[in-house]
Amino acid sequence: MAGAEIERLIRLLAKLPGLGPRSARRAALHMVKHKDRTMAPLARAMTEAVEKVGACSLCGNVDTADPCGICTDPRRDPAVLCVVEEVGDLWAMERAAVFRGRYHVLGGTLSALDGVGPDELRIPALERRASEPAVGEVILATNATVEGQTTGHYIADRLADAGVRVTALAHGVPVGGELDYLDDGTLTAAMKARRAL
Amino acid sequence: MAGAEIERLIRLLAKLPGLGPRSARRAALHMVKHKDRTMAPLARAMTEAVEKVGACSLCGNVDTADPCGICTDPRRDPAVLCVVEEVGDLWAMERAAVFRGRYHVLGGTLSALDGVGPDELRIPALERRASEPAVGEVILATNATVEGQTTGHYIADRLADAGVRVTALAHGVPVGGELDYLDDGTLTAAMKARRAL
Repeated sequence: MAGAEIERLIRLLAKLPGLGPRSARRAALHMVKHKDRTMAPLARAMTEAVEKVGACSLCGNVDTADPCGICTDPRRDPAVLCVVEEVGDLWAMERAAVFRGRYHVLGGTLSALDGVGPDELRIPALERRASEPAVGEVILATNATVEGQTTGHYIADRLADAGVRVTALAHGVPVGGELDYLDDGTLTAAMKARRAL
Repeated sequence: MAGAEIERLIRLLAKLPGLGPRSARRAALHMVKHKDRTMAPLARAMTEAVEKVGACSLCGNVDTADPCGICTDPRRDPAVLCVVEEVGDLWAMERAAVFRGRYHVLGGTLSALDGVGPDELRIPALERRASEPAVGEVILATNATVEGQTTGHYIADRLADAGVRVTALAHGVPVGGELDYLDDGTLTAAMKARRAL
């Protein structure tokens, strides 16, 4: 239908998460119609990102600098490490702006089925970082899924002798959540962890 | 949260139709994680498209060639012009593969409110093309919306003296459609245009 270049653009866009063939076509058409305003800056931004962006060798965050901006930020507390599964989780924590320490991105969860062991997950690096005298607490912020919690428990075991306090995010009723719509697991967790007022 | 380059990439991605801030973040993260497989080819495809893709001066289609591949395809019937609102509609017709003539992309619909008159819509160019002796039929394939139909009727009026047959897509029950879920307008149109079996 369109030229080979546009077809290829659509095919590549359709591979992005959240974009199917239909939305890829819409996005491609939008870009072609607003070449200078949309496609050219995006192409430049991507080319630049391809060249510059990489993983932080300390925490696994993605950034143009290595170590990344968070690891080198002197205003952030080096005594607390927050362990997350993926960079997207790190971004979510940063958006919430509740954490002013540093991160450690695992890169996934343990999975015997998929052959993902501790060495694939930057867990040895976490052990080394947690053993540094400057680090006093490791907060496990893996997802509240079976895989995330399993990985969290495994890490807690590995860090038992590292001389750091190991904590985990609280489970409970999400803020704004209605009991009627909550699953049993969340309600059970919230009930067990109830607190005195 | 991430480096300035990634922030900018997310902001630009979020401007694409169908992508909000959340899906733009997911797409950006996916690209950063699969730089060589996803981001680099996409950046190249876009850079290439920015340089090469433009509007066909004959029909308004987007292509790397001008006139476009459809206008210059000798297997396509030059006697029939199909008038569509946007390039996306042309792509939809091509996917259905029911039309083997040539196109004329208006670039929108008439809208007094938005100051879109016939001269903004490539209607004069359509008039010129329709008056060529080689052209025998103009098929109006504007959308079945109030704006699309108004534009279609206006074009039919303008082409009254051009010496071409002017036709329009049929209205009726969509194939696979259930009467119970159809709107009154479609049912009325289908009833009015009923045919003998």
